[in-house]
Amino acid sequence: MIYCCMMLILQNDSVNMVAPQLAAVFTKLQTLSTSDYASVVSMNIFVALLCACIVIGHLLEENRWMNESITALIIGVFTGVIILLTSGGKSSHLLVFSEDLFFIYLLPPIIFNAGFQVKKKQFFRNFITIMLFGAVFPTTSWRQYTCWSQLNLLMYVFVLPRLIFLVVTGVINFFKEMDIGSLDIGDFLAIGAIFAATDSVCTLQVLNQDETPLLYSLVFGEGVVNDATSVVLFNAIQSFDLVNTSPRILLEFIGSFLYLFLASTMLGVIVGLVSAYIIKKLYFGRHSTDREFALMMLMAYLSYIMAELFYLSGILTVFFCGIVMSHYTWHNVTESSRVTTKHAFATLSFVAETFLFLYVGMDALDMEKWRFVSDSPGTSVAVSAVLMGLVMVGRAAFVFPLSFLSNLAKKSACEKISFREQIIIWWAGLMRGAVSMALAYNQFTRGGHTQLRGNAIMITSTITIVLFSTVFLGSVTKSLIPAGYAQVFGLMTKPLIRFLLPHPKPTASMLSDQSTPKSIEAPFLGSGQDSFDDSLIGVHRPNSIRALLTTPAHTVHYYWRKFDNAFMRPMFGGRGFVPFVPGSPTERSEPNLPQWQ
Amino acid sequence: MIYCCMMLILQNDSVNMVAPQLAAVFTKLQTLSTSDYASVVSMNIFVALLCACIVIGHLLEENRWMNESITALIIGVFTGVIILLTSGGKSSHLLVFSEDLFFIYLLPPIIFNAGFQVKKKQFFRNFITIMLFGAVFPTTSWRQYTCWSQLNLLMYVFVLPRLIFLVVTGVINFFKEMDIGSLDIGDFLAIGAIFAATDSVCTLQVLNQDETPLLYSLVFGEGVVNDATSVVLFNAIQSFDLVNTSPRILLEFIGSFLYLFLASTMLGVIVGLVSAYIIKKLYFGRHSTDREFALMMLMAYLSYIMAELFYLSGILTVFFCGIVMSHYTWHNVTESSRVTTKHAFATLSFVAETFLFLYVGMDALDMEKWRFVSDSPGTSVAVSAVLMGLVMVGRAAFVFPLSFLSNLAKKSACEKISFREQIIIWWAGLMRGAVSMALAYNQFTRGGHTQLRGNAIMITSTITIVLFSTVFLGSVTKSLIPAGYAQVFGLMTKPLIRFLLPHPKPTASMLSDQSTPKSIEAPFLGSGQDSFDDSLIGVHRPNSIRALLTTPAHTVHYYWRKFDNAFMRPMFGGRGFVPFVPGSPTERSEPNLPQWQ
Repeated sequence: MIYCCMMLILQNDSVNMVAPQLAAVFTKLQTLSTSDYASVVSMNIFVALLCACIVIGHLLEENRWMNESITALIIGVFTGVIILLTSGGKSSHLLVFSEDLFFIYLLPPIIFNAGFQVKKKQFFRNFITIMLFGAVFPTTSWRQYTCWSQLNLLMYVFVLPRLIFLVVTGVINFFKEMDIGSLDIGDFLAIGAIFAATDSVCTLQVLNQDETPLLYSLVFGEGVVNDATSVVLFNAIQSFDLVNTSPRILLEFIGSFLYLFLASTMLGVIVGLVSAYIIKKLYFGRHSTDREFALMMLMAYLSYIMAELFYLSGILTVFFCGIVMSHYTWHNVTESSRVTTKHAFATLSFVAETFLFLYVGMDALDMEKWRFVSDSPGTSVAVSAVLMGLVMVGRAAFVFPLSFLSNLAKKSACEKISFREQIIIWWAGLMRGAVSMALAYNQFTRGGHTQLRGNAIMITSTITIVLFSTVFLGSVTKSLIPAGYAQVFGLMTKPLIRFLLPHPKPTASMLSDQSTPKSIEAPFLGSGQDSFDDSLIGVHRPNSIRALLTTPAHTVHYYWRKFDNAFMRPMFGGRGFVPFVPGSPTERSEPNLPQWQ
Repeated sequence: MIYCCMMLILQNDSVNMVAPQLAAVFTKLQTLSTSDYASVVSMNIFVALLCACIVIGHLLEENRWMNESITALIIGVFTGVIILLTSGGKSSHLLVFSEDLFFIYLLPPIIFNAGFQVKKKQFFRNFITIMLFGAVFPTTSWRQYTCWSQLNLLMYVFVLPRLIFLVVTGVINFFKEMDIGSLDIGDFLAIGAIFAATDSVCTLQVLNQDETPLLYSLVFGEGVVNDATSVVLFNAIQSFDLVNTSPRILLEFIGSFLYLFLASTMLGVIVGLVSAYIIKKLYFGRHSTDREFALMMLMAYLSYIMAELFYLSGILTVFFCGIVMSHYTWHNVTESSRVTTKHAFATLSFVAETFLFLYVGMDALDMEKWRFVSDSPGTSVAVSAVLMGLVMVGRAAFVFPLSFLSNLAKKSACEKISFREQIIIWWAGLMRGAVSMALAYNQFTRGGHTQLRGNAIMITSTITIVLFSTVFLGSVTKSLIPAGYAQVFGLMTKPLIRFLLPHPKPTASMLSDQSTPKSIEAPFLGSGQDSFDDSLIGVHRPNSIRALLTTPAHTVHYYWRKFDNAFMRPMFGGRGFVPFVPGSPTERSEPNLPQWQ
């Protein structure tokens, strides 16, 4: 705005027309706006790079070594190099990363979208079962589930404690040998929480729902809950004084974790239900797409900041708010609102992720951090290698035993998880990404500086691991899986199809749901997903009904469906409980809405 | 995030379980986060109020005295009162208004959406004619146009210079009599530019496209160009030293204004065309809604900040970028992307406007500003009254003469603008809103303070005028127009319909385009709008072709259409030049897209 005439004045100067007072104005303006102008330049470059990432990511989509996260990371690193050379080695930043930027603008859309697009049925079934603690014992009733649903469930229960425990003990033992400066036990626990966050975003860009539906669903379900739980655990660790550990403090810690988890979930569910109720009651017969979309967006964001208000976990809250909104609210709005919300939320999440990867790429070359490390490069490499090794061991330590346990309980070979599959599950979950990065910045750059040697080493190690795991593991996985598809999955493709044949509906909805190819989580949402739910109530074959009545897990789900249909849906709307509102995309069928009276 | 365990600790305290070190942590955390927590509370209240505005605005939609802007203003004032009472008279703010907030986040979506949803045909026709200076002389060829198109055009040419001139001279004369502190001639010119900005947003919520299409189109077209030109003029005024006025500086001023206008327009057009080209070339056959939407959004924002980079007017740039994007880019994307972009841009604009009105309502009670005014309440009232009077006189001084001139050139009575209509045109354009407010903050609160008496008086006067004109004039207009509809428009409804009957297409498209009732500018965009364009090329009746060849204005438009069809559309896409991509909202028809290879 305020520079608008400076250019002109400069041009006038060149044609020798400038009056003395104009020159004075120019000087004044220039002094005032140098720093502003620099930030305008930075913003321009950053937005242009974001556009470039999207375009190049699209062009490289079929390249088997690349995906959008890797593209953004590499573009970020190249830009960092250029800035570093231009600025004479001073800085590789365009924007200074602030935790606020991440937690206020970038994280909420990513997590909300994950909740909004998750396959609710699988998620809820596992969730309710976990709540009832019936999940721990694999019984014969499990045969009613698909393999991956069971594995998923087991992972929810065991993943985090084990992984964190392994990483933390390993880190403590290793780092005592090395000289990496002042890290206390809180830092070690935080490292455990940081590296527990599997990068669901990057993993899903590497895997493909249609070719490997099992892996895709498994890693996605694990990733989302993993992310959320990591953040919750991380917060719990950060605010406790862990130097003087006692059983009582440990109990309090577990109690606070459970409280956070439950209260955050409840808050998200309540805000989601309120939004469904408001839209159902108020907008009936007089729809307005803009208002509906605005209300959903604002309510989702409100749930996030309300969690902050009540000292809860915003991430869990907004995740469950997304789930409830897609289960109830989404069905109460017009067709255009549905299309708009579905794609707009996915796009916001996509832009936030690209932004983050681009930033991490640039930040990787920040000199300030590397300066502390440069005098002992061996230590830094060793720390990164140790952490990466611990992540691999930690993941192996629960994937293989759990798969073994899960296989024990199964009788037919088709339900068992083959060793090849176990390796892919282990491998695909090794990537660490945006959430790890953000948590590391939060823990180790308090007050905006990385002056302490230990902190600098941890930040550089995190960057190294994120770069290595995303770029190297990501491209290897992407290139291996399609190539090795016949070998790895050929063995189980036929049994899988045979196994899925009695349940043709899920398979069909899974495969027809190709709306936005490669867009991160969009395939999870679709018209197929809820017709899916109904098969449990109406379309049961006799043997299913028998199984339903004899197995506890099915019974819980059955009663939930009954409760949902009897009380929740009539109250809050939902599929089949809201009269169809036409409102086609081009609004051809909505001409009779009441206008101004 | 960081408060997550404080609540817990508080609760533990109440059950007497707290360990000494936990209490220490609690104290430390509380000290650290008091100011953060206050801002979390503010954000919660603000987002909750935004939701309330949307819901209450919807409920009061049929109330003839209210609209969404007024609702937001009133809710803002009430909240301001409550905060004032709670804080003991210290402050009525929740957020401190920063110019950046407005110019970086709120203004771009509003203006981009205005360009994206404008009825391009009318706008371009007038724009090209203005360029050729053939427009100034009303000839018989004008009978080919509708009445309002001509009036619109005349307004574009004469509105701003006249209004600004009138306001400025009036202000200078009046204020010299009063004692209002230190305002220089730049301030007076800025006041002229500030009060030249008709509030298109509020006006359009009051008028209704179906009942009063003439007024609606007229005020919208005027408002948008008015807003943009106000900002450009305002910037030109701000950066020139106007104390020592000479003919040469005046010439430079006019030159800089023209340069700004043309260069900004070109930049917007270029960025828009680049976006169209990229999406047409790259996404052909391999569409992804998320990427398309992300790219359009980022490119639009890029055009805005690139204008800042080149010292141009971001507002004009993003406005023309929106026009080009809706003319070319929008046609190159899938059906779902079209629905999503159309509604998502409208929603972002809607939320930004609601935010702004809510803020203005709260800010109206800010004590700091009123303190300077309170010792001489007469002066403030007088200044507000004088400014409001000048706005009224200034508007009357061009609406009535221009209408008279326009009527002189017309032979049939049906084309003439009746006196009643002239009054409504005058009245409906009196409202001042968001843009006036933002410009006033920019001019008179530099450095964030309103310590100077003159500045404080100007800010309070602007608030008074915005509140008065929006709430009072807005509700009066809204209540009068439907009530007086029969009287005011009864006289011309029949002739208008008779006049429009030979051109049934525009009328049909205008009336069927009721997609999102009351959503601010959405009715401007629709499938009808471009089929509208085609009537000029293919479906002409013989007399139209004759008229087309004999009249210069039509010829310009004809050659533009030819050029557009021959060169632009094959290159950049556009309606009819892109193979139809199915991709229906629910993606039923998009199952054959190439997936992972």
